[in-house]
Amino acid sequence: VAATAADIQRTIDTYIATFSATDREAWLALFADDATVEDPVGSEVQTGSEAIGAFWDFVHELSPTVTLHAAGPACIVDGEAAFPITIVNDLGGTLMALDAIDVVTLTDDAKIATLRAYWDMALMHPYEA
Amino acid sequence: VAATAADIQRTIDTYIATFSATDREAWLALFADDATVEDPVGSEVQTGSEAIGAFWDFVHELSPTVTLHAAGPACIVDGEAAFPITIVNDLGGTLMALDAIDVVTLTDDAKIATLRAYWDMALMHPYEA
Repeated sequence: VAATAADIQRTIDTYIATFSATDREAWLALFADDATVEDPVGSEVQTGSEAIGAFWDFVHELSPTVTLHAAGPACIVDGEAAFPITIVNDLGGTLMALDAIDVVTLTDDAKIATLRAYWDMALMHPYEA
Repeated sequence: VAATAADIQRTIDTYIATFSATDREAWLALFADDATVEDPVGSEVQTGSEAIGAFWDFVHELSPTVTLHAAGPACIVDGEAAFPITIVNDLGGTLMALDAIDVVTLTDDAKIATLRAYWDMALMHPYEA
Protein backbone atom coordinates (compact mmCIF):
# COMPACT_ATOMS: atom_id res chain seq x y z
CA VAL A 1 0.00 0.00 0.00
CA ALA A 2 1.45 3.35 -1.03
CA ALA A 3 1.99 6.08 1.54
CA THR A 4 -1.01 8.35 2.01
CA ALA A 5 -0.85 12.09 1.54
CA ALA A 6 -1.19 12.47 5.32
CA ASP A 7 1.81 10.16 5.88
CA ILE A 8 3.85 12.11 3.34
CA GLN A 9 2.85 15.45 4.87
CA ARG A 10 4.00 14.13 8.25
CA THR A 11 7.39 13.15 6.77
CA ILE A 12 7.79 16.62 5.25
CA ASP A 13 6.82 18.35 8.50
CA THR A 14 9.25 16.13 10.42
CA TYR A 15 11.99 16.81 7.86
CA ILE A 16 11.62 20.53 8.42
CA ALA A 17 11.32 20.23 12.21
CA THR A 18 14.24 17.86 12.78
CA PHE A 19 16.54 19.77 10.45
CA SER A 20 15.67 23.03 12.20
CA ALA A 21 16.19 21.43 15.63
CA THR A 22 19.65 20.21 14.51
CA ASP A 23 18.47 16.67 15.33
CA ARG A 24 20.76 14.69 13.02
CA GLU A 25 19.57 11.22 14.03
CA ALA A 26 15.85 11.96 13.75
CA TRP A 27 16.43 13.64 10.38
CA LEU A 28 18.48 10.71 9.06
CA ALA A 29 15.77 8.28 10.22
CA LEU A 30 13.41 9.83 7.64
CA PHE A 31 15.39 8.33 4.75
CA ALA A 32 15.13 4.83 3.28
CA ASP A 33 18.30 2.71 3.57
CA ASP A 34 19.32 3.24 -0.05
CA ALA A 35 18.01 6.80 -0.37
CA THR A 36 19.64 9.33 -2.68
CA VAL A 37 20.05 13.04 -1.98
CA GLU A 38 21.04 15.64 -4.60
CA ASP A 39 21.13 18.92 -2.70
CA PRO A 40 21.38 21.20 -4.58
CA VAL A 41 20.41 19.86 -8.00
CA GLY A 42 23.59 19.48 -10.05
CA SER A 43 25.77 18.52 -7.08
CA GLU A 44 27.08 15.02 -6.37
CA VAL A 45 24.34 12.52 -5.53
CA GLN A 46 24.74 11.11 -2.00
CA THR A 47 23.53 7.52 -1.61
CA GLY A 48 22.73 5.78 1.67
CA SER A 49 22.70 6.78 5.30
CA GLU A 50 26.47 7.22 5.71
CA ALA A 51 26.81 9.55 2.72
CA ILE A 52 23.68 11.49 3.65
CA GLY A 53 24.98 11.86 7.21
CA ALA A 54 28.28 13.18 5.80
CA PHE A 55 26.26 15.69 3.75
CA TRP A 56 24.51 16.83 6.95
CA ASP A 57 27.92 17.28 8.62
CA PHE A 58 29.24 19.27 5.66
CA VAL A 59 26.23 21.61 5.72
CA HIS A 60 26.60 22.20 9.45
CA GLU A 61 30.33 22.89 9.18
CA LEU A 62 29.53 25.72 6.77
CA SER A 63 26.76 27.13 8.93
CA PRO A 64 26.22 25.60 12.39
CA THR A 65 22.66 26.91 12.63
CA VAL A 66 20.45 26.28 9.63
CA THR A 67 16.69 26.39 9.91
CA LEU A 68 14.02 25.50 7.37
CA HIS A 69 10.67 27.23 7.08
CA ALA A 70 7.71 26.05 5.01
CA ALA A 71 7.18 28.70 2.33
CA GLY A 72 3.89 27.44 0.96
CA PRO A 73 1.78 24.30 0.75
CA ALA A 74 3.42 20.95 0.03
CA CYS A 75 2.15 19.55 -3.28
CA ILE A 76 1.68 15.82 -2.74
CA VAL A 77 0.54 13.44 -5.49
CA ASP A 78 0.93 9.75 -6.27
CA GLY A 79 3.63 9.00 -3.70
CA GLU A 80 5.72 12.00 -4.64
CA ALA A 81 5.87 15.56 -3.38
CA ALA A 82 7.35 18.99 -3.98
CA PHE A 83 7.46 21.56 -1.22
CA PRO A 84 8.77 25.14 -1.03
CA ILE A 85 11.01 26.08 1.87
CA THR A 86 13.11 28.98 2.98
CA ILE A 87 16.58 27.89 4.14
CA VAL A 88 17.86 30.33 6.77
CA ASN A 89 21.56 30.40 7.57
CA ASP A 90 22.87 32.18 10.64
CA LEU A 91 26.17 33.62 9.46
CA GLY A 92 27.66 35.05 12.64
CA GLY A 93 24.40 36.68 13.67
CA THR A 94 23.35 37.77 10.17
CA LEU A 95 20.41 35.73 8.87
CA MET A 96 20.65 34.92 5.16
CA ALA A 97 17.94 33.08 3.23
CA LEU A 98 17.75 30.79 0.23
CA ASP A 99 14.45 30.12 -1.56
CA ALA A 100 14.26 26.40 -2.29
CA ILE A 101 11.92 23.73 -3.53
CA ASP A 102 12.57 20.15 -2.44
CA VAL A 103 11.24 17.33 -4.62
CA VAL A 104 10.93 13.88 -3.07
CA THR A 105 9.77 10.38 -3.86
CA LEU A 106 8.70 8.20 -0.97
CA THR A 107 8.55 4.52 -0.09
CA ASP A 108 5.31 2.84 0.92
CA ASP A 109 6.14 3.59 4.57
CA ALA A 110 6.65 7.29 3.72
CA LYS A 111 10.44 7.24 4.01
CA ILE A 112 12.32 9.48 1.61
CA ALA A 113 13.64 7.41 -1.31
CA THR A 114 14.99 10.31 -3.39
CA LEU A 115 15.40 13.99 -2.69
CA ARG A 116 16.43 16.71 -5.13
CA ALA A 117 16.67 20.29 -3.84
CA TYR A 118 16.31 23.27 -6.18
CA TRP A 119 18.20 26.31 -4.91
CA ASP A 120 21.07 28.48 -6.02
CA MET A 121 23.66 29.83 -3.59
CA ALA A 122 24.08 32.88 -5.85
CA LEU A 123 20.54 33.95 -4.94
CA MET A 124 21.09 34.09 -1.18
CA HIS A 125 19.50 37.19 0.28
CA PRO A 126 18.94 38.76 3.70
CA TYR A 127 16.21 36.94 5.62
CA GLU A 128 13.04 38.80 6.45
CA ALA A 129 10.92 36.77 8.87
CA VAL B 1 26.10 26.55 -23.81
CA ALA B 2 23.41 25.81 -21.23
CA ALA B 3 20.48 28.16 -20.77
CA THR B 4 21.12 30.91 -18.25
CA ALA B 5 18.94 31.45 -15.21
CA ALA B 6 17.61 34.61 -16.87
CA ASP B 7 16.63 32.63 -19.99
CA ILE B 8 14.90 30.01 -17.85
CA GLN B 9 13.08 32.65 -15.80
CA ARG B 10 11.83 34.17 -19.06
CA THR B 11 10.53 30.76 -20.22
CA ILE B 12 8.71 30.29 -16.89
CA ASP B 13 7.21 33.80 -17.03
CA THR B 14 6.09 33.21 -20.62
CA TYR B 15 4.65 29.82 -19.69
CA ILE B 16 2.47 31.44 -17.03
CA ALA B 17 1.52 34.42 -19.24
CA THR B 18 0.63 32.48 -22.38
CA PHE B 19 -1.33 29.85 -20.49
CA SER B 20 -3.28 32.55 -18.66
CA ALA B 21 -3.93 34.42 -21.95
CA THR B 22 -5.27 31.16 -23.49
CA ASP B 23 -2.59 31.55 -26.19
CA ARG B 24 -2.25 27.92 -27.26
CA GLU B 25 0.34 28.46 -30.00
CA ALA B 26 2.66 30.68 -27.96
CA TRP B 27 2.42 28.23 -25.05
CA LEU B 28 3.18 25.22 -27.29
CA ALA B 29 6.17 27.07 -28.77
CA LEU B 30 7.86 26.94 -25.36
CA PHE B 31 8.37 23.18 -25.61
CA ALA B 32 11.17 21.30 -27.37
CA ASP B 33 10.05 19.06 -30.25
CA ASP B 34 10.30 15.85 -28.24
CA ALA B 35 9.24 17.34 -24.91
CA THR B 36 7.38 15.29 -22.31
CA VAL B 37 4.62 16.55 -20.02
CA GLU B 38 3.31 14.67 -16.98
CA ASP B 39 0.60 16.92 -15.58
CA PRO B 40 -0.29 15.95 -12.91
CA VAL B 41 2.45 13.59 -11.70
CA GLY B 42 1.11 10.05 -12.01
CA SER B 43 -0.94 10.74 -15.14
CA GLU B 44 -0.04 9.57 -18.64
CA VAL B 45 3.12 11.17 -20.03
CA GLN B 46 2.42 13.24 -23.16
CA THR B 47 5.29 13.30 -25.66
CA GLY B 48 5.73 15.79 -28.49
CA SER B 49 3.85 18.82 -29.70
CA GLU B 50 0.73 17.01 -30.94
CA ALA B 51 0.17 15.15 -27.68
CA ILE B 52 0.93 18.23 -25.59
CA GLY B 53 -1.50 20.25 -27.72
CA ALA B 54 -4.15 17.57 -27.12
CA PHE B 55 -3.46 17.88 -23.39
CA TRP B 56 -4.04 21.65 -23.65
CA ASP B 57 -7.35 21.01 -25.44
CA PHE B 58 -8.43 18.50 -22.77
CA VAL B 59 -7.68 20.95 -19.97
CA HIS B 60 -9.64 23.72 -21.69
CA GLU B 61 -12.63 21.47 -22.34
CA LEU B 62 -12.87 20.86 -18.60
CA SER B 63 -12.51 24.53 -17.73
CA PRO B 64 -12.43 27.07 -20.59
CA THR B 65 -10.76 29.72 -18.45
CA VAL B 66 -7.72 28.61 -16.50
CA THR B 67 -5.19 31.10 -15.23
CA LEU B 68 -1.83 30.53 -13.56
CA HIS B 69 -0.36 32.78 -10.90
CA ALA B 70 3.21 32.65 -9.61
CA ALA B 71 2.96 31.65 -5.94
CA GLY B 72 6.57 32.26 -4.96
CA PRO B 73 10.03 32.52 -6.48
CA ALA B 74 11.10 30.11 -9.21
CA CYS B 75 14.04 28.00 -7.99
CA ILE B 76 16.43 27.68 -10.94
CA VAL B 77 19.63 25.67 -10.84
CA ASP B 78 21.86 23.85 -13.32
CA GLY B 79 19.45 24.00 -16.28
CA GLU B 80 16.48 22.82 -14.25
CA ALA B 81 13.81 24.63 -12.29
CA ALA B 82 10.90 24.22 -9.90
CA PHE B 83 8.30 26.91 -9.48
CA PRO B 84 5.15 27.22 -7.36
CA ILE B 85 1.94 28.32 -9.04
CA THR B 86 -1.70 28.67 -8.21
CA ILE B 87 -3.94 27.19 -10.91
CA VAL B 88 -7.25 29.05 -10.95
CA ASN B 89 -10.26 27.46 -12.66
CA ASP B 90 -13.34 29.50 -13.46
CA LEU B 91 -16.15 27.00 -12.90
CA GLY B 92 -19.20 28.90 -14.10
CA GLY B 93 -18.20 32.06 -12.26
CA THR B 94 -16.86 30.33 -9.15
CA LEU B 95 -13.07 30.55 -8.93
CA MET B 96 -11.43 27.39 -7.59
CA ALA B 97 -7.70 27.06 -6.96
CA LEU B 98 -5.12 24.29 -6.99
CA ASP B 99 -1.71 24.73 -5.35
CA ALA B 100 0.90 23.31 -7.69
CA ILE B 101 4.62 23.07 -8.19
CA ASP B 102 5.90 22.55 -11.73
CA VAL B 103 9.33 20.96 -12.20
CA VAL B 104 11.07 21.41 -15.54
CA THR B 105 14.28 20.56 -17.33
CA LEU B 106 15.30 22.81 -20.19
CA THR B 107 17.28 22.60 -23.40
CA ASP B 108 20.26 24.84 -24.07
CA ASP B 109 17.90 27.32 -25.79
CA ALA B 110 15.63 27.35 -22.72
CA LYS B 111 12.84 25.30 -24.25
CA ILE B 112 11.01 22.94 -21.91
CA ALA B 113 12.35 19.40 -22.37
CA THR B 114 10.41 17.79 -19.52
CA LEU B 115 7.65 19.06 -17.26
CA ARG B 116 6.16 17.30 -14.24
CA ALA B 117 3.38 19.08 -12.32
CA TYR B 118 2.70 18.32 -8.66
CA TRP B 119 -0.93 18.96 -7.73
CA ASP B 120 -3.91 16.97 -6.51
CA MET B 121 -7.43 17.65 -7.74
CA ALA B 122 -8.74 16.48 -4.35
CA LEU B 123 -7.15 19.57 -2.77
CA MET B 124 -8.99 22.12 -4.93
CA HIS B 125 -10.22 25.00 -2.80
CA PRO B 126 -11.97 28.33 -3.28
CA TYR B 127 -9.60 30.92 -4.73
CA GLU B 128 -8.72 33.94 -2.65
CA ALA B 129 -6.87 36.48 -4.77
